[in-house]
Amino acid sequence: MTSDISTGSFTLPGEAGFEQLTLRLAKKWGADTIRDSDGTQLSPEIVQSGYAIYSTVCLVRSVQPWARTHRDKLQQNFLMSRPVVAAKSSVTVTLLDGYYTEQFAVNFKDSPKQWWQVFDRTTGDEVPKSKWSVNPRKGAVTITGAYPGHRYTVNFLAFRIWEEISMYNHLTNNWGDREHLAAVDPMQPETQKALLAFLDGWLRGHPDTKVVRFTSMFYNFSWFWGADHKRLRDIYSDWGDYEMTVSPRALRLFEKKHGYRLTSEDFVNGGLYNSTHNAPSRRYRDYMAFVHDFVIEFGRKCIDLVHRHGKLAYVFYDDHWIGVEPSSPRFAEFGFDGLIKCVFNAFEVRLCAHSRGVSTKELRLHPYLFPTGLKGEPTFQKGGGGNPTLDAKNFWIDARRGIVRAPIDRIGLGGYLSLVEPWPDFQDYIEQVAQEFRLLKSFHAGDTPYVAPFKVAVLTAWGDLRAWTCSGHFMQNVELYHVLETLAGLPLDVQFISLDDVAARGVPRGVRAIINCGRAGTAWSGGHHWDDPRVEAALAEWVRKGGGFVGIAEPSARPQPGQNFRLAQVLGLDRDNGERLANGSYNYDAPAAGAAAPHFITADLADGRAPDLGKGVDGIYVLGGGTQVLADGDGSPRLATHVFGKGRAVYLSGFKFSHENTRLLHRALFWAAADEAAWGAWHAENFYTECSWFPKKKKLVVINNAGTPQTTRVTLGDGRTALPVGLDAHGIAILDV
Amino acid sequence: MTSDISTGSFTLPGEAGFEQLTLRLAKKWGADTIRDSDGTQLSPEIVQSGYAIYSTVCLVRSVQPWARTHRDKLQQNFLMSRPVVAAKSSVTVTLLDGYYTEQFAVNFKDSPKQWWQVFDRTTGDEVPKSKWSVNPRKGAVTITGAYPGHRYTVNFLAFRIWEEISMYNHLTNNWGDREHLAAVDPMQPETQKALLAFLDGWLRGHPDTKVVRFTSMFYNFSWFWGADHKRLRDIYSDWGDYEMTVSPRALRLFEKKHGYRLTSEDFVNGGLYNSTHNAPSRRYRDYMAFVHDFVIEFGRKCIDLVHRHGKLAYVFYDDHWIGVEPSSPRFAEFGFDGLIKCVFNAFEVRLCAHSRGVSTKELRLHPYLFPTGLKGEPTFQKGGGGNPTLDAKNFWIDARRGIVRAPIDRIGLGGYLSLVEPWPDFQDYIEQVAQEFRLLKSFHAGDTPYVAPFKVAVLTAWGDLRAWTCSGHFMQNVELYHVLETLAGLPLDVQFISLDDVAARGVPRGVRAIINCGRAGTAWSGGHHWDDPRVEAALAEWVRKGGGFVGIAEPSARPQPGQNFRLAQVLGLDRDNGERLANGSYNYDAPAAGAAAPHFITADLADGRAPDLGKGVDGIYVLGGGTQVLADGDGSPRLATHVFGKGRAVYLSGFKFSHENTRLLHRALFWAAADEAAWGAWHAENFYTECSWFPKKKKLVVINNAGTPQTTRVTLGDGRTALPVGLDAHGIAILDV
Repeated sequence: MTSDISTGSFTLPGEAGFEQLTLRLAKKWGADTIRDSDGTQLSPEIVQSGYAIYSTVCLVRSVQPWARTHRDKLQQNFLMSRPVVAAKSSVTVTLLDGYYTEQFAVNFKDSPKQWWQVFDRTTGDEVPKSKWSVNPRKGAVTITGAYPGHRYTVNFLAFRIWEEISMYNHLTNNWGDREHLAAVDPMQPETQKALLAFLDGWLRGHPDTKVVRFTSMFYNFSWFWGADHKRLRDIYSDWGDYEMTVSPRALRLFEKKHGYRLTSEDFVNGGLYNSTHNAPSRRYRDYMAFVHDFVIEFGRKCIDLVHRHGKLAYVFYDDHWIGVEPSSPRFAEFGFDGLIKCVFNAFEVRLCAHSRGVSTKELRLHPYLFPTGLKGEPTFQKGGGGNPTLDAKNFWIDARRGIVRAPIDRIGLGGYLSLVEPWPDFQDYIEQVAQEFRLLKSFHAGDTPYVAPFKVAVLTAWGDLRAWTCSGHFMQNVELYHVLETLAGLPLDVQFISLDDVAARGVPRGVRAIINCGRAGTAWSGGHHWDDPRVEAALAEWVRKGGGFVGIAEPSARPQPGQNFRLAQVLGLDRDNGERLANGSYNYDAPAAGAAAPHFITADLADGRAPDLGKGVDGIYVLGGGTQVLADGDGSPRLATHVFGKGRAVYLSGFKFSHENTRLLHRALFWAAADEAAWGAWHAENFYTECSWFPKKKKLVVINNAGTPQTTRVTLGDGRTALPVGLDAHGIAILDV
Repeated sequence: MTSDISTGSFTLPGEAGFEQLTLRLAKKWGADTIRDSDGTQLSPEIVQSGYAIYSTVCLVRSVQPWARTHRDKLQQNFLMSRPVVAAKSSVTVTLLDGYYTEQFAVNFKDSPKQWWQVFDRTTGDEVPKSKWSVNPRKGAVTITGAYPGHRYTVNFLAFRIWEEISMYNHLTNNWGDREHLAAVDPMQPETQKALLAFLDGWLRGHPDTKVVRFTSMFYNFSWFWGADHKRLRDIYSDWGDYEMTVSPRALRLFEKKHGYRLTSEDFVNGGLYNSTHNAPSRRYRDYMAFVHDFVIEFGRKCIDLVHRHGKLAYVFYDDHWIGVEPSSPRFAEFGFDGLIKCVFNAFEVRLCAHSRGVSTKELRLHPYLFPTGLKGEPTFQKGGGGNPTLDAKNFWIDARRGIVRAPIDRIGLGGYLSLVEPWPDFQDYIEQVAQEFRLLKSFHAGDTPYVAPFKVAVLTAWGDLRAWTCSGHFMQNVELYHVLETLAGLPLDVQFISLDDVAARGVPRGVRAIINCGRAGTAWSGGHHWDDPRVEAALAEWVRKGGGFVGIAEPSARPQPGQNFRLAQVLGLDRDNGERLANGSYNYDAPAAGAAAPHFITADLADGRAPDLGKGVDGIYVLGGGTQVLADGDGSPRLATHVFGKGRAVYLSGFKFSHENTRLLHRALFWAAADEAAWGAWHAENFYTECSWFPKKKKLVVINNAGTPQTTRVTLGDGRTALPVGLDAHGIAILDV
């Protein structure tokens, strides 16, 4: 390591009262920047110590006295009341039944008859407005002429009287009678004035701040709380849904711009709202574009103001990030200088790296310097079983897989720095992490690591807008998350395409393997977006001509009579959802339970055992003898291949991120792309290890993704010349070759 | 036992060449009737021995020379060609690709352009008739103007040139070059003449025959064979589907009668055909009624002819039973004298007993006198591991549960009598079975066994037309079969109602517990029949006012946005099909994994263990605190209860027939009906045993359903007075109380 990489690119959370520690660790970790965090302040001694200063600001909850006197300018959203089964012809629905009334207050001010809808959910029909009336005193709607035995719900507007992030922190940290902060809606011109005035004053009041870190722009991801925090706290929670942007003003502006009117049901959708996981409607996509327009427009005013004060503007890629859309081609229009992503996993590193239109990309690493972790684990509790150094190592080896593959500019920590004082080994390890990061960053500078000689595309309903994420943290029951985490560290050129993209323009040039992974109806599998026949036609033709299709769980699922996977003929199999009891199924050859058949794809599975692909999907049947089943479970193929024309398809019944499965998917992509010949170039044989070749720097980075020492053999670009490499637990080796 | 029940009500299969055995066993078993079987003849010595004689006749395959010279009068059906993905704008579909060409020959004679349809399955649209042409020489259709990458199928008419039952017997028994029999279509007037002429001659030629056993009427259940008998013999097989009745003539007559035209797709349905397991369309139900009309009309002519010859007409409730419909209210119009059902299980006993309009109901018991059983087991193979006596005992205790509950007039065996010669213990056991049967029959005479003081209804899309069956033999993966087998032996008054019945007339009077059991989309759960909002409304109202609803697997499933079970509010739970990743779910209290919570329903579960309900359904979430989870697995309730208004609901995630689960369901029904107070009357405590009280005869029949000796305590009508009873393995005890 050379001296020019011993400092810089590191953001340290300072803490007033711990000035000596702050400055000592800033030096030890090579920090160039000191930040404040939620709950911490920086003292003048720190601010004037010569380091660059980051300061956080959350605009929408910044103007509290104003918010309290302008309750009609608070943010709002549609909610669906809990379904009520009518017992008589008159039925009363208590609107906020089951909801947390410290978060929500019904908006009776904007005409309910204009904005609300009442549904007979039994028939699916809207109840005429003449048949229901509002009782603001009781917070209820009464329906007349109801049919006994039918279910009724009311879609209504509610103001949010407690901003969700401050509510979460308040309740989690028992802040008692501390003020409940509310978020104002910047869609209101009057609110915009108040916010810009606040920001101007704030900028004047922070002369030492170099970087303004917005947390984030204006609208939080959707998070509806229930009244019973023990039994049902999160009635609805989605990291990517735009529910919390809605208001009568937004709806009016939308109609003016897009020429048609959205209804409450476009947002409520029977209580499913617009979960990112479900294939989005065209109307909702229009609405997202509308909000994105607005957030860019007003966001740019805020950023321009920051720039006029000679400061930089960074944005946090969480919390109030709705409408910011760092994956959007329009993101550059904001004029942000930096993007900060909190990361637990490799896919989040790639998510951050993927954004275009910002010069600095920074990761907030874990563990966060809080007494307990997100799941309540005792990270920094001395004597409480915490082992923050081991936590840091495990988080680091996950994130590092992504950092090796894609350029990141900075890393940093957040929280209470004082917590690390009793953990000298943690202090030492972070020093090592910072050095390792700067070294990897130096390799990326002017260079690009080796990737396979073909491109890989992940096909979803969202395409590039939701590249490298399925909406928020890693959800174990979403197969695509496992796939993203796998891909995030593999030497592949991965792109994300939507079914709409394929319908309009076909498969992008250079792509030789496509992954479609997810359950029927989800945005990940594609859901109703498969209704456009151009998608199926383009993909079938593309495979026939030599493309490779890797389908996982319920790929291309969109049921028609007699066929559930649109690409069943390509995959050589389909799923029986219970409608084929009278249809026979082909009696295929399969390896014994628990075993995998020998194949290029299965070559690295330990002891020829079938891979553990998680729960996955059952009821798969093969269409004929052309389908080769490589692993089977309970009479349903788990892993199968099929040749279609000049192309190839691979099916996996599920997927679970593991080192072994990472190798399996890597091989499956090479096989699908019919590029087995290229396998083995710049390759680490032991699947607990991976390597990355920087051709211009002539550096071969070998990483150990395991918590135990490993030996591996690394093959060079010819795929044959092999070098033995030994690695410490969590270790790294740099080879000059 | 009194002497008047030592003989009669027993049909023995005679066998020429084994006259002495035939007459000895006829006497030993108390037979009053001797029959021929497939493959056996009766010699004059047997025919004139003084026993009544049954003779089998299968009309549609009786006129072979005529069939060969009238190929256009053979039966036919629609088939769907295997989907072909177009590679160019012209695509050729080989019609019989994958089908068994000894069974099918394409019908090019009736205008293909009039009757066939070609579909672009990618779009779902029919291809215009101008865009395809038929090549009879190649057995193919060529489509022009096709879209590359789209899937195409052809619905075409095929003659069946080999009748399925004779084909099955021929191939199973290696009959070599024996003639392939074809089935003629009696919908053709000319064919009707030929058949009546044959029958008249046959009747004249069988002067000693007392009973003509029709096997059965005209149309076999649907059975489409594949070319590859090892890999995919049964392309489609459904015991209740009317596919094999179709012809241009039938379609023309249908249109004339019903005023609208059916298309090939009404039968093909994307290759799913009209499986009895899937919720039927209104159009298909109309077609069934049309065929039923015809089968009654021409069937009655045949039966009248039998009667004019002074003989009785019995009909076999299998094989060519399509259109016969013994559960139909019109069945009596045939004028049959007897109905014969082959039984493996108790539900088939109830199926036979359920038919109205026939004076004699006879069961063909198992084991069938064949060297091997239906699944290839070596029943009568001496030294081959066969144990026909044990088989007979096990079949008998299953059938006996039904015989105890519902009156049956006769039993009998079929096959090669000579096979029983080396098995004297089998001969003895059948003597015992015959005696036991006659005793039970005597109890039913003029009496009706005790049932619970409330009625139970099984709710399906089919209702009473498919009472006591889900189409053919017991399929392990159909939950309702398990329920039917359970109900078949319970002291309950069970009726079968359809969703249409409920929509039109509500829940029948006296019904206090309704079972709805099955997977989403099936006829058993109800599928699209739930679209009629009157069904949901009627049932919700009925439960609210005090009814009991027992839902199993996916009861009332018919997805709408945000809700999958129409009666979720009644059940207190619903299923997440993957669309609720962003919706929170209520955190309920549940017993530990593998345990059952104490409750009236779970009181008899061994050691408080959770019941084994089979694979069942996962992803169930509860709606709130009112739902009590009695057993849980992998975070999804397996058994739960919910109070709705004055009524009660019970949910089971699946169901598997077992003695323990029989008790569980029995209790669930009493709890749902809110009649726990009536529990215990005429009740056997040990769940391997059951009892049946004949009030007029004052006989309490106690049966042991296990293959091991059991002791039990039987409580009398007061539910308290208990008598200890010991029973042999498979045993029975009769108590005078």
